[in-house]
Amino acid sequence: MGTVVRQMDKIPFHVRKNTKSLIFANKFTKMRTSFFSEEPICAVATPHGMGAIATVRVSGPQTHAIVCRLFQHHGKPFDAARIEGYHAYYGQLVNGEATLDEAVVTFFKAPHSFTGEDAAEISVHGSVFIQQRLLELLVEKGARLALPGEFTRRAFVNRKFDLAQAEAVADLIASQSEAAHRLAMNQLKGGFSKELQIMRSKLLEITSLIELELDFSEEDVEFADRSKLKALLEETLSHVTRLMDSFRLGNAIKNGIPVAIVGQTNTGKSTLLNALLGEDRAIVSDIAGTTRDTIEETLNINGILYRFIDTAGLRNTDETIEKIGIERSYKKIGEANVIIGMLDATTGYESMLLAANDIRSKVDLAHQQLILCINKVDTLTDQGEALLGELRLDLDDDDIMVICLSAKHGFGLNELYNALKHSQPLASPNATLVTNVRHYEALLHASESLKSVQQGLEMNIPTDLISQDLREALYHLGSITGEITTEEVLGSIFSRFCIGK
Amino acid sequence: MGTVVRQMDKIPFHVRKNTKSLIFANKFTKMRTSFFSEEPICAVATPHGMGAIATVRVSGPQTHAIVCRLFQHHGKPFDAARIEGYHAYYGQLVNGEATLDEAVVTFFKAPHSFTGEDAAEISVHGSVFIQQRLLELLVEKGARLALPGEFTRRAFVNRKFDLAQAEAVADLIASQSEAAHRLAMNQLKGGFSKELQIMRSKLLEITSLIELELDFSEEDVEFADRSKLKALLEETLSHVTRLMDSFRLGNAIKNGIPVAIVGQTNTGKSTLLNALLGEDRAIVSDIAGTTRDTIEETLNINGILYRFIDTAGLRNTDETIEKIGIERSYKKIGEANVIIGMLDATTGYESMLLAANDIRSKVDLAHQQLILCINKVDTLTDQGEALLGELRLDLDDDDIMVICLSAKHGFGLNELYNALKHSQPLASPNATLVTNVRHYEALLHASESLKSVQQGLEMNIPTDLISQDLREALYHLGSITGEITTEEVLGSIFSRFCIGK
Repeated sequence: MGTVVRQMDKIPFHVRKNTKSLIFANKFTKMRTSFFSEEPICAVATPHGMGAIATVRVSGPQTHAIVCRLFQHHGKPFDAARIEGYHAYYGQLVNGEATLDEAVVTFFKAPHSFTGEDAAEISVHGSVFIQQRLLELLVEKGARLALPGEFTRRAFVNRKFDLAQAEAVADLIASQSEAAHRLAMNQLKGGFSKELQIMRSKLLEITSLIELELDFSEEDVEFADRSKLKALLEETLSHVTRLMDSFRLGNAIKNGIPVAIVGQTNTGKSTLLNALLGEDRAIVSDIAGTTRDTIEETLNINGILYRFIDTAGLRNTDETIEKIGIERSYKKIGEANVIIGMLDATTGYESMLLAANDIRSKVDLAHQQLILCINKVDTLTDQGEALLGELRLDLDDDDIMVICLSAKHGFGLNELYNALKHSQPLASPNATLVTNVRHYEALLHASESLKSVQQGLEMNIPTDLISQDLREALYHLGSITGEITTEEVLGSIFSRFCIGK
Repeated sequence: MGTVVRQMDKIPFHVRKNTKSLIFANKFTKMRTSFFSEEPICAVATPHGMGAIATVRVSGPQTHAIVCRLFQHHGKPFDAARIEGYHAYYGQLVNGEATLDEAVVTFFKAPHSFTGEDAAEISVHGSVFIQQRLLELLVEKGARLALPGEFTRRAFVNRKFDLAQAEAVADLIASQSEAAHRLAMNQLKGGFSKELQIMRSKLLEITSLIELELDFSEEDVEFADRSKLKALLEETLSHVTRLMDSFRLGNAIKNGIPVAIVGQTNTGKSTLLNALLGEDRAIVSDIAGTTRDTIEETLNINGILYRFIDTAGLRNTDETIEKIGIERSYKKIGEANVIIGMLDATTGYESMLLAANDIRSKVDLAHQQLILCINKVDTLTDQGEALLGELRLDLDDDDIMVICLSAKHGFGLNELYNALKHSQPLASPNATLVTNVRHYEALLHASESLKSVQQGLEMNIPTDLISQDLREALYHLGSITGEITTEEVLGSIFSRFCIGK
């Protein structure tokens, strides 16, 4: 049971210490409350820089009083007692004699706000000076600058949503394609959380019965039905495995589906990449600021993000440096979901067939999609075209798509887009896909624990060890939605948010 | 009267045609209405890029109906008839089956909105994808993308403010220092507009009496008291001149007060510039996006923006290229409001006195402030310091400030900041300063016309020519606030705004 001991180290001490408390999930949620939520916080919530308007967000106790120290409505100081929630007030931001700006202030009353606290959104003219000065004045009047993700963290603390949903907020903001946006939106709506909750409550029920046995261990009773337990384990494990399997696709949709472009030298790989980028590049990227986190070769085609990887040409060589390049190409083939194999129509029938078979041998057709592109078809004579027909027939395979194109002249690109669209086993719009590495790892740990439980039951090991493994599985599943969490985990998650969120 | 004829070309034909209508200012305001304000428009109003939240603004007829086609409140389609103005509604943006985002929508009912039209502000998660998709959906549902400045233009058309105030909105957004912000805020509040309005209504009264005389010209009566007219002209002209004079300062505050750093080679000019930039650079500029439109050497010191200009070292030379550099230095001295003259303490008493007098001879002490900086004082021996005291006495002049510093060690910089602060005849916080070239030019034309009226009265020229000049003065003054305007002028002003404003 070396695994168990190793994994135990990862479980916070207070969880290990108190076995009983595990049965009641709500006992763990104390972790949500956070000492520093007593302070009012403020931050610019809109993107950095200059714009027509900008919004400064304030949240926490005293928010209304703090804002009213600066805000005049109809030329008179605004009385915090008169505030109606979800109402927007037009007035002036005034500090002493000086008017900072005209503003529309929308007040929210706890718990009916994003954070669940008293809050205000101050909409001002989007000058950088005004934004900065307003923050200074709010700090002067009693607020402090918010940490990254602190508003969302407070929403989590106040049970506005769970941890997986909070992470979905960050994914939603960062989403660059329709597919990634839809995934984040589903997760934000709580579909994933609900699945986990159902799994967890079933496991909890069993765990409570198992642990009851421990209390009566001297009497040798069995409260938990072993066969029911085995069936439930089987079901849960297969559910967890399904979710883990969805990560490859979920992650690809979120970060771009990896497509490797391979082929011998001079088959037109880079020309194709340029043609792809030149035609459709930046469907979302013509808005400034979007390219910051994208790779050069990322492309949004019909709402799906692809990550094109240009590789070194494949050929037999003794040249050391070139060999390294070719090895890297093979590695990239292994990492890609889709492989575009480039063939050069001008090299003739035999060469192309050889090259095609060479590429095909490198691709794992069970898990990867191969699209063979016969390039430079514009140069073909009538005779050449006849041969081409023959080649297509010879290459024909249900698992392989064959396309003729001219990367140089942009001919055949639409056919390639369609092939890409059909190359990916796209999940139904409402399917749950795991997109987050943290969730994937938690599922992996949970599945390991569940397998230990299975083994334990097979081997009739003592109930307390089984209980231990079940507890771990519960812990890991609970860590995804934050039912069980630690300050460290929360800190690491929210510090990756932007300030103002 | 060649001037009159030339200027007449600039006056739109409909103004020239109908003399009588000039008496009633409100007749000109028809120009405000604009045929395309019938269309609902939309744009992202917050800065470009990704942020916690972003706001999309919609305005115009049908705005409420269009937004309600996308917006669900409590999971049900939202009924536009139930909308309360200045109320924020939390709900979902839904298109068919797909949920785009959660949103807080604030509705405004005409005329109680920024534009004076029905309007809505949709606050969504600040993903670039969501912002773009929301615009697409709004266009699908009947809005069109707004032109630059179109929201503000509609506010102008609907008499929310005049043209000078609309321009103040743009200045406010672009303001980089407290002083520039205050100027824009004053202009937005309408102080400048009120001054112009008072001037104009006085001139209008006189003009109406003068033009009444024209109707009775055969009877040779004088309705307008000539001496009263002369006094009024004198008063108006001096007011216009005062406003024109304020442009040098107003423009400097808006774009940065030009400060030339001059001196012989190796006196430490560049070291001083670096010391200044290193210490206080970017008081507002550490927020991304602010440096886009600023010059490298712009510096915000205690809320005032300075534009430091490093110049080539001054010395006698026969080298052609160096000569050109030195000529440019002299030119920059002429353009600056403040001149910092650098002296090198290590060169000794005589050299410094010579250099100081050389610099002083280049400066127009009536209009420019000279600050002499004795640099490298850290290197001085006791004897040197004694000589320095002597030098300060010799240079002493009510119009010149003398400071000792070490640019290299950052010593004396505070004294220099203070000198800069006092170098500028800063207007009282509420004084009207002209900051806009368009306004300055209109004032210039108005003053020329008023001078023509004065001359005409002196020379007893016919009433109809005097009336013509008065009309022109009125036209130019009215063009500042947009009482009189043309499509061309409006187009040129608002096209410089950002989209969403």
